[in-house]
Amino acid sequence: MVKYSPKSIDLQQRLQVFMDAEIHPNEATRAAQLAAAEDRFAPLPLVEELKAKAKAAGLWNLFIPESHAGYSDHGGLSNLDYYALAETMGRVLWAAEVFNCSAPDTGNMEVLMNFATPAQQKQWLEPLLAGEIRSSYAMTEPQVASSDATNIELSLRRDGDEWVIDGRKWFITGAMNTRCKIFIVMGKSDPDNPDRHKQQTQILVPRDAPGVEVVRALTTLGYDDAPLGHAELRFDGVRVPAENVLAGPGRGFEIAQSRLGPGRMHHCMRLVGAAQRALEITCARVQTRSTFGRRLAQHQSVREDIARSFSEIEMARLLVQRTCARMDEVGAQAARDLIAASKTSVPPMVQAILDRCMQMHGAAGLSGDFFLAEAFNYARWCRQADGPEQVHWMALGKQLIERYAGDAG
Amino acid sequence: MVKYSPKSIDLQQRLQVFMDAEIHPNEATRAAQLAAAEDRFAPLPLVEELKAKAKAAGLWNLFIPESHAGYSDHGGLSNLDYYALAETMGRVLWAAEVFNCSAPDTGNMEVLMNFATPAQQKQWLEPLLAGEIRSSYAMTEPQVASSDATNIELSLRRDGDEWVIDGRKWFITGAMNTRCKIFIVMGKSDPDNPDRHKQQTQILVPRDAPGVEVVRALTTLGYDDAPLGHAELRFDGVRVPAENVLAGPGRGFEIAQSRLGPGRMHHCMRLVGAAQRALEITCARVQTRSTFGRRLAQHQSVREDIARSFSEIEMARLLVQRTCARMDEVGAQAARDLIAASKTSVPPMVQAILDRCMQMHGAAGLSGDFFLAEAFNYARWCRQADGPEQVHWMALGKQLIERYAGDAG
Amino acid sequence: MVKYSPKSIDLQQRLQVFMDAEIHPNEATRAAQLAAAEDRFAPLPLVEELKAKAKAAGLWNLFIPESHAGYSDHGGLSNLDYYALAETMGRVLWAAEVFNCSAPDTGNMEVLMNFATPAQQKQWLEPLLAGEIRSSYAMTEPQVASSDATNIELSLRRDGDEWVIDGRKWFITGAMNTRCKIFIVMGKSDPDNPDRHKQQTQILVPRDAPGVEVVRALTTLGYDDAPLGHAELRFDGVRVPAENVLAGPGRGFEIAQSRLGPGRMHHCMRLVGAAQRALEITCARVQTRSTFGRRLAQHQSVREDIARSFSEIEMARLLVQRTCARMDEVGAQAARDLIAASKTSVPPMVQAILDRCMQMHGAAGLSGDFFLAEAFNYARWCRQADGPEQVHWMALGKQLIERYAGDAG
Amino acid sequence: MVKYSPKSIDLQQRLQVFMDAEIHPNEATRAAQLAAAEDRFAPLPLVEELKAKAKAAGLWNLFIPESHAGYSDHGGLSNLDYYALAETMGRVLWAAEVFNCSAPDTGNMEVLMNFATPAQQKQWLEPLLAGEIRSSYAMTEPQVASSDATNIELSLRRDGDEWVIDGRKWFITGAMNTRCKIFIVMGKSDPDNPDRHKQQTQILVPRDAPGVEVVRALTTLGYDDAPLGHAELRFDGVRVPAENVLAGPGRGFEIAQSRLGPGRMHHCMRLVGAAQRALEITCARVQTRSTFGRRLAQHQSVREDIARSFSEIEMARLLVQRTCARMDEVGAQAARDLIAASKTSVPPMVQAILDRCMQMHGAAGLSGDFFLAEAFNYARWCRQADGPEQVHWMALGKQLIERYAGDAG
Repeated sequence: MVKYSPKSIDLQQRLQVFMDAEIHPNEATRAAQLAAAEDRFAPLPLVEELKAKAKAAGLWNLFIPESHAGYSDHGGLSNLDYYALAETMGRVLWAAEVFNCSAPDTGNMEVLMNFATPAQQKQWLEPLLAGEIRSSYAMTEPQVASSDATNIELSLRRDGDEWVIDGRKWFITGAMNTRCKIFIVMGKSDPDNPDRHKQQTQILVPRDAPGVEVVRALTTLGYDDAPLGHAELRFDGVRVPAENVLAGPGRGFEIAQSRLGPGRMHHCMRLVGAAQRALEITCARVQTRSTFGRRLAQHQSVREDIARSFSEIEMARLLVQRTCARMDEVGAQAARDLIAASKTSVPPMVQAILDRCMQMHGAAGLSGDFFLAEAFNYARWCRQADGPEQVHWMALGKQLIERYAGDAG
Repeated sequence: MVKYSPKSIDLQQRLQVFMDAEIHPNEATRAAQLAAAEDRFAPLPLVEELKAKAKAAGLWNLFIPESHAGYSDHGGLSNLDYYALAETMGRVLWAAEVFNCSAPDTGNMEVLMNFATPAQQKQWLEPLLAGEIRSSYAMTEPQVASSDATNIELSLRRDGDEWVIDGRKWFITGAMNTRCKIFIVMGKSDPDNPDRHKQQTQILVPRDAPGVEVVRALTTLGYDDAPLGHAELRFDGVRVPAENVLAGPGRGFEIAQSRLGPGRMHHCMRLVGAAQRALEITCARVQTRSTFGRRLAQHQSVREDIARSFSEIEMARLLVQRTCARMDEVGAQAARDLIAASKTSVPPMVQAILDRCMQMHGAAGLSGDFFLAEAFNYARWCRQADGPEQVHWMALGKQLIERYAGDAG
Repeated sequence: MVKYSPKSIDLQQRLQVFMDAEIHPNEATRAAQLAAAEDRFAPLPLVEELKAKAKAAGLWNLFIPESHAGYSDHGGLSNLDYYALAETMGRVLWAAEVFNCSAPDTGNMEVLMNFATPAQQKQWLEPLLAGEIRSSYAMTEPQVASSDATNIELSLRRDGDEWVIDGRKWFITGAMNTRCKIFIVMGKSDPDNPDRHKQQTQILVPRDAPGVEVVRALTTLGYDDAPLGHAELRFDGVRVPAENVLAGPGRGFEIAQSRLGPGRMHHCMRLVGAAQRALEITCARVQTRSTFGRRLAQHQSVREDIARSFSEIEMARLLVQRTCARMDEVGAQAARDLIAASKTSVPPMVQAILDRCMQMHGAAGLSGDFFLAEAFNYARWCRQADGPEQVHWMALGKQLIERYAGDAG
Repeated sequence: MVKYSPKSIDLQQRLQVFMDAEIHPNEATRAAQLAAAEDRFAPLPLVEELKAKAKAAGLWNLFIPESHAGYSDHGGLSNLDYYALAETMGRVLWAAEVFNCSAPDTGNMEVLMNFATPAQQKQWLEPLLAGEIRSSYAMTEPQVASSDATNIELSLRRDGDEWVIDGRKWFITGAMNTRCKIFIVMGKSDPDNPDRHKQQTQILVPRDAPGVEVVRALTTLGYDDAPLGHAELRFDGVRVPAENVLAGPGRGFEIAQSRLGPGRMHHCMRLVGAAQRALEITCARVQTRSTFGRRLAQHQSVREDIARSFSEIEMARLLVQRTCARMDEVGAQAARDLIAASKTSVPPMVQAILDRCMQMHGAAGLSGDFFLAEAFNYARWCRQADGPEQVHWMALGKQLIERYAGDAG
């Protein structure tokens, strides 16, 4: 039903070759390097080697959309064309970085493409596009429910040619990484503005600016997600030049909105790949074990769980593909109903599929010996990242009631 | 993402016009005619008028596939092309009959196209195509689990130039209808055949043959599904000529298999339409009622239920569309994984959506004043029709394990 | 864990004997009498005979609580003591009436015990206690969301020594019954009262009062619930004497609150009995059928569904028992958290159990040949009766937040 | 409804005092000690101090049942009496050890009480009862589905006065702990025995026996569960004296069965406590945060999730209490239906409750700042510990079909 462009099909084939040759055979090595690392948040040698190979193979910055074709060698891809690539990458949780396609850098690069000055782009976007540095997007705060972005309290105060930054952030993905050099920070610059969507500003803050403190690494379900990591940050009288503001004061909310569509979908794309792989390895697993005189594969309830997972994966994949196609047609804003549907449906479905697959693996399924448990954590995390389901349901429900019944008040 | 043919798009537009002009405005009239009917299983005048109009409007026998183009004026439609039409029809539970597209006649006509002799086609297929008579497919038996077709016990015994039929059937949809004239009966003709898939034969039995008894009407939940109905039948020494056998003795199982792909999908197509309509009327309903100082539309949990239902409808629709497209490409046999996924996923999803929509309607949602409760019954029934989910999961799970892990034993 | 009084244990044993001797053997007869009835809402001869026998056997008005011991021969029962009796009655959907323990009469009798004058009691309560007439509780209105009782719009206007009643009601259970003689009607008598819980009044209205119209019978999921029925009513300038007001003008909301605790629990009690019976007959059914070479009883997924249902029934039973015990200790008001927990948990659990049991029965499970489908309708209906789950969750959630965190605002 | 003995009530009160004074105030300290530990699997100073205090306070070995009263100062407790204590301990995941009530030592001590010789008891049971050493129960093997205990492959071979042990085990809880001194190992000693439940033997193996290798620590989700830990073990020609066999050769399966009843219930008891605490802190959390102009506590969906969780906790608690009471009355074997119901129902319910509570906490809920994520891991782990749900459903379903329908074949 889905039609990919010849360019995407060519990339899909080459990506598959790369995955088979370079990624899958190295999963154990990567795990061993991380386990043995002195600093869990330092880059891993294997991944650096693979990045070089991927770049050489023309499998680099695949996320770049057609609208920013100039930033890529491949000329940009539609969301749908990218879908197939991202699903494949999603089969290995750390693979996206090899192709410079990992969050939060992809979203940050898009922000810089859209809103940064040429000088800012030279300083930060170019090394990001080259995979030489990493970046963070500093939105969530510990003391408020940040899914309502207007709650953000970090203070941005203009002082002459500078902005002074005071406040806290947490769950800032990537900020633990030793190669993370730049934060895009969302703060409140104009708390008295009667339009509460104009009170916020986004600003570039170098990670090594005086007053920036990386307080600690946070975990999700026991995982530190190294070497990426989720950090708690403190900004204590940090000063940056006025030109570090992105787009202009008061446009923080607008930038936040623009960033979220593709970012949410990238997670969904990869989650489908993770679920698909989980299904496949579970089919293999249940063939090798027996209980009560028959292979697990022969138990009716095992077959049901596998059949159900297949059906759900198909539906998740189709929903994500359709959302991508729709974004390509009408843009993210007009496709926000489907984006919300994907964002709220895919992560919990994949979580449930992984839960079943773990169960069919026995205790091993919960361990680090299979990728299931870590993928489960990723799916669970995605139910919070970019806002909990509840917030998106609220907006989507309101939109639908308006569509079918007029103003929902 | 889906591309319909120009023919389908034209039919979709004309069907929509017909629905708006002739079907929706007549829902109350149809209900009143049925309530007032002397015989609940006799044809309703309104529906007969509408059939004539639909035929005149070129909206007739839309289900006929491209492979049997000669039987239709429109030249046949792919499964995907038909999808959009069937979804629209599904918004009103009795609409499909108006376009001569209702079960079980559509499946029976396909059987007759594929397996009947010219004489049989003249006698039975032609009036069915003309909407002059109706038909039933007599498979399920009260005394055995009929989802395993090899359990069928109705006896078919050859006696000279005739077959003698003894046994019972039930849940035979359509057999209550006064215009039902012909049954396709599945029975066991060769119980000792070592290949248990060759023991069955299908045979044409006129409803008025001596020895055929329509014992009673059965209900599902509280519905008699009049004027279609589900009958219990008794066959007591019924005799039909040898040429009434379809395809040949021992080919009953094969015919059964051939029949099921599109039939299952037609139910799914219509269920998506029913769910979509339920969502739309629920959005309208929650705007008109208030509790505890706010409209239902403003309650977060109502918005969540609506958003969730939208997402599920999208996924169900996409799965059905993709299954149709796949059937068009590779045939029903090769698409049996997706057919099973649709058959097992769509009815329970639609049941859950309708359950939620009924709940948001209050007690009214359970009544006959809205179409929700009857649609709920239809979705629930579809979880048994053509076999319970469990049987399809078993087969699909086995197939998937084989695909990803080799022989599932 | 549960300790019943000797009186309850004695009644339980005698009730069981009666069920085995008089109820179960007559299930088919009762169905046949109803099917053959000229007026589906007239009393059934069988049930009248059984009522006489139950009365003679001392199994009458078992619902009467200890607080109203004087109205019963048995001296009243605690809620917990009654629990075991009601669960047993719940195994047959129409059994409670045989023991004069059926809704809505039980709740109405309690209202009359609590709030009626001696004259009113003589006129209405005595024949109700004797099982000679039936009654209805007229609360729900078609044009407003009645789960918020302050929405009630039926007009009660004082005119001299009379009240004048104008408005509509629907889903008034029992009002179709030919022996229903009296309605307890809730209306708005003081719409301008600043305390919106004092605007309502409850008043006794004879079913044959001029201006009362029984408009039509309503169905739920296709069931008319005859001979009890759910009616739509119109009150057109109906006049009743001022003394027909219960308790006093403005106390309607208070009476409504008082009535609901036991009423909700009685439904839950019977639903547990229905679920238990469903489990038992399903265990028997799966032994008698085979698919794919093994009895259904041997399929792992069948065993899982049965095991799961057993566990859920145990939990539902324990929750209802505990709620009853708590009501006995501290009263319905202080036990409202557990009442809400039962009211919102038990009906959907029982609905899901029945859904599974129907599925394990094949198409037969949806028919009238087993009690499953009708019990399913009862469980589904109970999710609306006395307010939808959502309303109770709202109140319970608020109460819990206050309990553990202070004022929930 | 539940009646605890005066002894239990007294212990409950004293335990509560201890929890309030010594456990809750030390949660952060314990976490800090663990984070700073050089060896994550060494005993934590704080816990050792608290153990001494608990012992002094008479809150020691509370798990000891009445049947083994002699081993305790308190004279033994019924399962139901212990329930209330274990629920309270379960509010803090590491609290049970403080009272010498933690798995797997409690189960191992019971095995030693039941099956060990006086000499073995002196050597191993006494220091376990004193909290001086820890122990492991080595059942699960990496290469087979160990939920079917007859699959166990570790070889036990008699050689003169010794047994020689060869094989692998994994997910051996407690075996990482530096104070773990003794393993109870299940192996296959008589593979040709026609009774496949007599092929197994359990044997005592000191952790420091030559040939025992602690290969590595395993994780579940991202947790190493330090300082307890789950180990992979290798036994390579390990020799122990013949008298180390428990009960006698061939009785391994019997011992395994005897051990499991209370063990499974202890997990359930603590999980109820964990869920209860989660509910309470979530009620507090939702009061402190606002989105879209209202406190989370005011959002209808938040109230629903809280109300639902309360109801589920009540049901889980009641089921566990009832199972305990039933074990007290008739023994674990006769109460195996309820044990299976608890074992399969409580962990997934608690997992779902914790999932909801994490969601209501935002990203923080997944972190180590609240106990929710770690409790989630505990609940998820319990769905595998002592066998996956599927195995227990299978046995319970079979038992129920037999009960209600005769032999389930």
